Amino acid sequence: MTDMIQPVILCGGAGTRLWPESRGHRAKQFLPLTGAQSLFQQTIVRTSAGAGFGSPIILCGDPHVAAVRDQLGACRATLLVEPMPRNTAAAIALAVARVAADTLLLVMPSDHVIADVPAFHAAIARGARLAQQDWIVTFGITPTGPETGFGYIANGAALGDDGFVVDRFIEKPPLVDAEAMLAAGGYSWNAGIFLFRAGRMRDAMLTQCRAIFEAADRSIAAGMIDGDALYADAVHFAQAPSDSIDYAVMERDERVAVVPASMGWSDLGSWQAVHMLAPKDAASNAVTGDAFLHDSQSNLVRAGGKRVSLVGMDSIAVIVDGDDILVMPLVRSQDVRAAAKAREAPN
Amino acid sequence: MTDMIQPVILCGGAGTRLWPESRGHRAKQFLPLTGAQSLFQQTIVRTSAGAGFGSPIILCGDPHVAAVRDQLGACRATLLVEPMPRNTAAAIALAVARVAADTLLLVMPSDHVIADVPAFHAAIARGARLAQQDWIVTFGITPTGPETGFGYIANGAALGDDGFVVDRFIEKPPLVDAEAMLAAGGYSWNAGIFLFRAGRMRDAMLTQCRAIFEAADRSIAAGMIDGDALYADAVHFAQAPSDSIDYAVMERDERVAVVPASMGWSDLGSWQAVHMLAPKDAASNAVTGDAFLHDSQSNLVRAGGKRVSLVGMDSIAVIVDGDDILVMPLVRSQDVRAAAKAREAPN
Repeated sequence: MTDMIQPVILCGGAGTRLWPESRGHRAKQFLPLTGAQSLFQQTIVRTSAGAGFGSPIILCGDPHVAAVRDQLGACRATLLVEPMPRNTAAAIALAVARVAADTLLLVMPSDHVIADVPAFHAAIARGARLAQQDWIVTFGITPTGPETGFGYIANGAALGDDGFVVDRFIEKPPLVDAEAMLAAGGYSWNAGIFLFRAGRMRDAMLTQCRAIFEAADRSIAAGMIDGDALYADAVHFAQAPSDSIDYAVMERDERVAVVPASMGWSDLGSWQAVHMLAPKDAASNAVTGDAFLHDSQSNLVRAGGKRVSLVGMDSIAVIVDGDDILVMPLVRSQDVRAAAKAREAPN
Repeated sequence: MTDMIQPVILCGGAGTRLWPESRGHRAKQFLPLTGAQSLFQQTIVRTSAGAGFGSPIILCGDPHVAAVRDQLGACRATLLVEPMPRNTAAAIALAVARVAADTLLLVMPSDHVIADVPAFHAAIARGARLAQQDWIVTFGITPTGPETGFGYIANGAALGDDGFVVDRFIEKPPLVDAEAMLAAGGYSWNAGIFLFRAGRMRDAMLTQCRAIFEAADRSIAAGMIDGDALYADAVHFAQAPSDSIDYAVMERDERVAVVPASMGWSDLGSWQAVHMLAPKDAASNAVTGDAFLHDSQSNLVRAGGKRVSLVGMDSIAVIVDGDDILVMPLVRSQDVRAAAKAREAPN
């Protein structure tokens, strides 16, 4: 069944939460954060022809085309190049406008980790059955804690064994609500992974966000082809309102399903998350590069070609990238933006 | 009176407690740790001709000759080059062997801070009166806390208003003893600053540690002169037993005086001490170089040409030197040796 599914990989993100390694042309998805392969490469591999998928469509901006081509290596793919960032609805509209109406599109971020690939494939098989019945499918991650950094999806009526009607989408909740949802069950995290028939999404967009789809459709028609890449036309694409696919379609459409999945998912949204997923030594230190640790526990050190020495430090991140050195407690990982903003500000 | 005094500046130390900035050819005394001038340069200036002193004698090893000459600039000095480290007794013996018997020698480490130079000069004037009466004078630092990292000196009988007979020297004490001495009064820290008539010290050495003096004396006689430097002869100097001036002479001689002084002294013996003495911002951060601090207090950051960003860190040291980056709590400063040893070990 999966041989009918064409992966659509969203590569537009900047990933400033993993500054200083993630910045500018070298966004988070292109970094080898959990092993030898980048998150982008892992995304390609888990939806490759070998796993029964069609050739992927890569959505990215011009600054990332070189990194995408470099990391694809010998993999075949189609690049759809966004002339400027217009959020996920317009990006997905480009892919929808480019393919035949009966194509099943599996839309995925390029910067997530999925540790349990068989579980991922099983969830896609369930989602594909629903998508062929013209459900727009979103995959919900079974919560492992009361996270306040994700949106949640509430299950409605069951759709056989394959999933549930989406009752409603819930914005990033306060902790008390997150705890209540975790206790109640029937809620999952919105991971931004979608599966649908292209024609079904086109119809939904023409109803819910016509201006976005039409701008994308025209920018594809007027686009410029350069080998494996189609550069969407900038004048038309600039007309697309900037909106997320969640707001523009998912929360408005009447026939949206959720397929819950427990598949070792992480958005790797902070250095703390990187530490959690990384291989660690007996003292819970996760180290890449040349690091000397004395009487130090539970640290994340990415030495970036330099020589990092820690004495008596616990639970901090030391991230070295070029001439930048970031030091912070892992629990403060969300606050890295303060440093990224100050350091990356145009002079 | 001070125009009869010739400074003898001991430059042989390695200063690994301030690794990674202090190492190899760039020892602690040559670093600008508290301002634009290095500790060595500050030592030269506070005993310069302008302050009424004679031209200094610099005792150093061959690896430091270039740094000494570079940092002396236009200052006149005599370099006595030790062929190998033989501790302070042999180093001082070189100076004693080199000068006329009536010269007053003021021996000082080159890596200390003295904030109150007038108080220092006043103490020297008192010490000089005692030295001319053939006392070997040591300067005692009035304690500001129950430090366990220094040796202590106990006052004996008063010598007029100038100082006291030394009752005894006390090794680095346990905390309870340090607290008792602080409470009792009449004790001071042994700072390794000495003043004596050269002939008086020669006689003391010939009595207390003849082998050291004779080896030094012969190595001067057989030494090689190169401009402003006298390279002591290695074969003779190697015969000198390695001992501190404290053990070899001060604790054995019968006519040793202490001149207590309160002169803003610090041995700057750790990065914590550097933080204490450095200029600090409103959040008690002491920063040199390009550092961005967000929600961070009481840190010492020495960026060493790199760009250091701290988020949510308190009371740590981040020391960057070349490719080495040291991160540790300031209170763990004494443990830097673990990192220095691991990093500087010959491969």
